[in-house]
Amino acid sequence: MLAKIHITLKKDVLDPQGSVIANSLKSLGFDGVKDVRQGKYIEITLDDNDKDSAIKRLDEMCEKLLANMVIEDYSVEIN
Amino acid sequence: MLAKIHITLKKDVLDPQGSVIANSLKSLGFDGVKDVRQGKYIEITLDDNDKDSAIKRLDEMCEKLLANMVIEDYSVEIN
Repeated sequence: MLAKIHITLKKDVLDPQGSVIANSLKSLGFDGVKDVRQGKYIEITLDDNDKDSAIKRLDEMCEKLLANMVIEDYSVEIN
Repeated sequence: MLAKIHITLKKDVLDPQGSVIANSLKSLGFDGVKDVRQGKYIEITLDDNDKDSAIKRLDEMCEKLLANMVIEDYSVEIN
């Protein structure tokens, strides 16, 4: 079972890495870039067969290790 | 217009960061984690109104700046 996890900075948290990307794109001639936010994308392959219990465990993984809940949000998706 | 870009290592490229996450999850007691791959997730807000031309420009952004085409794949998605 493949789980896809997105970890993004909360809206109010400054994203200096995203600003650098936005500035670099502008200096390369890409106009019309209003905002860039960079996050993490993690794919986890699990042995689990039960979707509900997998999502529960993935939530726990995010809260314990993968995301910093003070400044980051996460979302879990299973295909 | 909000574009979502996923940048992932190509399948044959080793992902040491993913391995570290997998090992950390195991040592925290999460069994059944078979594989972890870490990638980047970038949200770009564009002024564009035309989806097709936006996708063309986003492809160019990925190839010129965001992704390292030797070792990474990317996908562009617009809602």
